[in-house]
Amino acid sequence: MLLLLSNYMNKKPLILITNDDGITAPGIRALVEAVKEFGEVVIIAPDSPQSAMGHAITINKPLRVDSTDLYGDIMSYHCSGTPVDCVKLAHHQVLDRLPDLVLSGINHGSNAAINVIYSGTMSAAVEAAVEGIPAIGFSLQDYSYHADFSLCVPFIKQIVSKVLSNKMPEGTLLNVNFPKGEIKGLKVCRQAKSKWKEDFDERTDPTGRKYFWLIGNFINMDNGNDTDEAALAENYASIVPTQFDLTAYKSLDTIKSWF
Amino acid sequence: MLLLLSNYMNKKPLILITNDDGITAPGIRALVEAVKEFGEVVIIAPDSPQSAMGHAITINKPLRVDSTDLYGDIMSYHCSGTPVDCVKLAHHQVLDRLPDLVLSGINHGSNAAINVIYSGTMSAAVEAAVEGIPAIGFSLQDYSYHADFSLCVPFIKQIVSKVLSNKMPEGTLLNVNFPKGEIKGLKVCRQAKSKWKEDFDERTDPTGRKYFWLIGNFINMDNGNDTDEAALAENYASIVPTQFDLTAYKSLDTIKSWF
Repeated sequence: MLLLLSNYMNKKPLILITNDDGITAPGIRALVEAVKEFGEVVIIAPDSPQSAMGHAITINKPLRVDSTDLYGDIMSYHCSGTPVDCVKLAHHQVLDRLPDLVLSGINHGSNAAINVIYSGTMSAAVEAAVEGIPAIGFSLQDYSYHADFSLCVPFIKQIVSKVLSNKMPEGTLLNVNFPKGEIKGLKVCRQAKSKWKEDFDERTDPTGRKYFWLIGNFINMDNGNDTDEAALAENYASIVPTQFDLTAYKSLDTIKSWF
Repeated sequence: MLLLLSNYMNKKPLILITNDDGITAPGIRALVEAVKEFGEVVIIAPDSPQSAMGHAITINKPLRVDSTDLYGDIMSYHCSGTPVDCVKLAHHQVLDRLPDLVLSGINHGSNAAINVIYSGTMSAAVEAAVEGIPAIGFSLQDYSYHADFSLCVPFIKQIVSKVLSNKMPEGTLLNVNFPKGEIKGLKVCRQAKSKWKEDFDERTDPTGRKYFWLIGNFINMDNGNDTDEAALAENYASIVPTQFDLTAYKSLDTIKSWF
């Protein structure tokens, strides 16, 4: 206990930053700039875009991780794996101590509502939370490479400050989404019931074989005013406390009654 | 309503089967054999192993899907994508109606406890549940290619029969895991608190560059007797009702109090 307190008092918080858009994405650079005042920042991010990788990990091929000078004085590494691989490598191979905070993003595109289950950004944060590390995923509702992250910065500072000065509830992380444009404030929400209505664009390759591109439209099926989608629609940033215990406790008794 | 009833009375249930070990894996063949008596079976599975792909989807490259004759009279397709891609392609491109049931597995290896979040098998079932389709993921605690799935078969029949004759609670699917060897019965459980303690095997390639293989040990941190791990340790099959609403409702008030 004394040792921990001593560590805490002597060292700045160690903040690991990752994402799923890759180490050169403007979103992660904006996040680094926004939070570097809060502690010692280390960046370990994929060397190529890993959007929609979900909680994938790399088990059938080797991983590469190499240092970069992309961030000047800030230690940074790029990794050949997924966002979750980055967190595992950071924790077990690169860092000499457990991070005090793991931040993922800022994602170019929404991870609100059902998007959370597809998101590499959020899965990196989930992986940290499984390890017991406070973690936040940040995303902006703008898929553009040249998205303007500047309006998110004061809210990121506020949220990171709160997370560093409070104890994250056990088994919980934060899924933060910012609307495009004006941000009126923060709302703590639940995940909206939603899905994607997919379609596949059918094409023919030069050899005459069919192939398909996934395309889709997001459908919000939730009229509640306490959801992340409702907050974003009113130009508020949404904060959804998120968990990785997937047990449907509300259905336990029903399923038990079947057997 | 009459139309739906008529469809139901005239047609056998349409059962979509997928997995993450690939269309040639013995586990999916065992599942097809176990359930083909319950309805019209269609198989759409990855053309290569996709273990640990989580909820990854393929958005940056095209997908291929082609029919096979691997299952004789049973319609089967192999797909170049992930398990979740298979479900999306099945629903939107291959089938002429929504399946009545989606089954995934039998996975070669456990998807109990925290493994659920890494599992391609379970993510395929989750994807179906997001679409409102009753779904079950089956896994056996034996990673061997030559695992013996025969002891699972009567329990699979029992579970599929119950799911077809009852209404799955909204937003719920089932995560079923079988112990290796004797199966004493079924227990409906919650997901055990657990994690992987990772390590990376550091090696040097022929050109002198370092690379890493992920290795790890599963750690059950949960002493509860109502968990999937507890059931499996006593040689019972575990059934965890599983959800994709990741909102940590129990933490909502705490996080609200921060802002």
